[in-house]
Amino acid sequence: MSAQPPSQSPAPRVGIVGATGAVGGELLLCLEQRRFPLSSLRLFASPRSAGRSLLFRDEPVKVEALTEAALAGLDIVLFSAGSATSRQFAPAAMRHGAVVVDNSSAFRMDADVPLVVPEVNPAAITAHRGLIANPNCVAIVAAVPLWPLHRVNPICRIIAATYQAASGAGAAAMEELRESTEAYLEGRDYPARVLAHPYAFNLFSHDTAVDPLTGYNDEETKVIREMRKIMGEPELRIGVTCIRVPVLRAHSIALTVEFADPITPEAVRALLAAAPGVRLVDDVAHNHFPMPREASGQDDILVGRIRRDVSDPSGRSVAMFVAGDQLLKGAALNAVQIAERLVG
Amino acid sequence: MSAQPPSQSPAPRVGIVGATGAVGGELLLCLEQRRFPLSSLRLFASPRSAGRSLLFRDEPVKVEALTEAALAGLDIVLFSAGSATSRQFAPAAMRHGAVVVDNSSAFRMDADVPLVVPEVNPAAITAHRGLIANPNCVAIVAAVPLWPLHRVNPICRIIAATYQAASGAGAAAMEELRESTEAYLEGRDYPARVLAHPYAFNLFSHDTAVDPLTGYNDEETKVIREMRKIMGEPELRIGVTCIRVPVLRAHSIALTVEFADPITPEAVRALLAAAPGVRLVDDVAHNHFPMPREASGQDDILVGRIRRDVSDPSGRSVAMFVAGDQLLKGAALNAVQIAERLVG
Repeated sequence: MSAQPPSQSPAPRVGIVGATGAVGGELLLCLEQRRFPLSSLRLFASPRSAGRSLLFRDEPVKVEALTEAALAGLDIVLFSAGSATSRQFAPAAMRHGAVVVDNSSAFRMDADVPLVVPEVNPAAITAHRGLIANPNCVAIVAAVPLWPLHRVNPICRIIAATYQAASGAGAAAMEELRESTEAYLEGRDYPARVLAHPYAFNLFSHDTAVDPLTGYNDEETKVIREMRKIMGEPELRIGVTCIRVPVLRAHSIALTVEFADPITPEAVRALLAAAPGVRLVDDVAHNHFPMPREASGQDDILVGRIRRDVSDPSGRSVAMFVAGDQLLKGAALNAVQIAERLVG
Repeated sequence: MSAQPPSQSPAPRVGIVGATGAVGGELLLCLEQRRFPLSSLRLFASPRSAGRSLLFRDEPVKVEALTEAALAGLDIVLFSAGSATSRQFAPAAMRHGAVVVDNSSAFRMDADVPLVVPEVNPAAITAHRGLIANPNCVAIVAAVPLWPLHRVNPICRIIAATYQAASGAGAAAMEELRESTEAYLEGRDYPARVLAHPYAFNLFSHDTAVDPLTGYNDEETKVIREMRKIMGEPELRIGVTCIRVPVLRAHSIALTVEFADPITPEAVRALLAAAPGVRLVDDVAHNHFPMPREASGQDDILVGRIRRDVSDPSGRSVAMFVAGDQLLKGAALNAVQIAERLVG
């Protein structure tokens, strides 16, 4: 590895757990494209996927089987292999002296674990005790454009309806969307394997369990709790409906946002035009607004359809539509941005 | 035609304008499957589509070119060929003595034109002056489940985000969704023809023009105005975001509804279980909720995900998710139900 660290401290030794998954592949790309200052990179996956090699900076890196002992000798480990793997192996990585950036939901709501979106609460990183959690993808995609508004005019209430891509359920779900759609077009049956419902030209309520007491599914509960924690507003009122749509890799969200004080669409547009990680796509004349196909592969969250919410006569509510790449800002990019701050 | 009228009045002579379109085909099927008591059926389309024959009750019916003169000798004419055709030819049908049921938006907001969803405001039909308008599909799909709640506990505010199918843009848009998806899966380019944006595994803000002053598109404005008119509540506060999703023929809507008085999900469920035109699909244990693939071909609006809106601490708000066949209850079925009441 020829990259040099930006400071005089030695460049960190980095590991990726879950390197062969959908997010894992994007983590590799983000580290490479952002010229992350690392001195070595090691890749880990389940024994089933170990042994293959993945290219990083034009050199093959062999994927190792994940064991506790194998996690020795690393400075930063990016986990993206599900909550069970994080619970089992993140403590070992930390014991070996590494800082963990965890993309799973395992530790996100722990009081002593920072939950970070660098555009929103970068200062929380410094309080880490060896592990920083990467938030839920919907929470990230919503928080990035809402935070610069909240700082100026506090948000009182958010009502959100999501349009979530297959990638949120992993590479196998993306493949199921492609394969089941092909089968549908050819008139063939396709028994769903990854998701519980037919996916071709269909959509359905998010595939996490629904709490029979509250009626909210796990994804919705994560979005509510994590947005509150990221924004530092434990009482923020959030209503959300999470829906899986037949889109490959970018999440969209219809947002209705109520502020403490009256606010105009023009003010929202001006604030977002200057906000980091946000790109305005709000071309009324050409009917061009955020779309998942255009958000795919992009670092920024696209924001448009910014308008007064006409159902609130007080003038304190605004509606908008956002789209962001679930695998990038919703997962891998945000994790690498956190790691950059650890190094920086 | 062998069908007999239910009363002693002669069975009506029925015409369909736009018989070769997506809704036209469903109108034929609805008339046949519901054994509509007609004495004769004539079909009209543009000169380009005239000359073909369509089957009705196992007999071929020739499609005639639409002219003003051709509309003589009919008692009921169902229009579904767009606003321009309705504006040009509905007056002629009325002059010839027919009652028009118009699926276009041309006359919906005219003060002397009833805008009818039979489950909601059937009495409005009797006030017609020769023309009854069939509402926008989203307005119908939302109004059917909301009306039985509104009657018991008045609705103050609705926030809706739609997931609208290709069928709302016609048969050519459905074909574009199929063809562009096939091209995407095969790695071929597909220049969009019917819709302005790529449709394969994508979604976008509704393809109607956006008012630069309000920021709302025509579809959203229709939904707001038409729901108010259908429900007889000219001041009802409605906020809506209309999104086109890659689904073939059923619309879904995420609804957040605020009532005048506190209400429980159980009360909503009980009211909807007894409501006409509604089917509860709210199986928390099996994560089975309304889906467009299951709503397709069904007369009922599917309703589920009924829960307290946790963003409203007053206990007056409920969230739910609904799906209804855009071509059936959203268009053809509702029109035929209106015609049935005319024959009554």
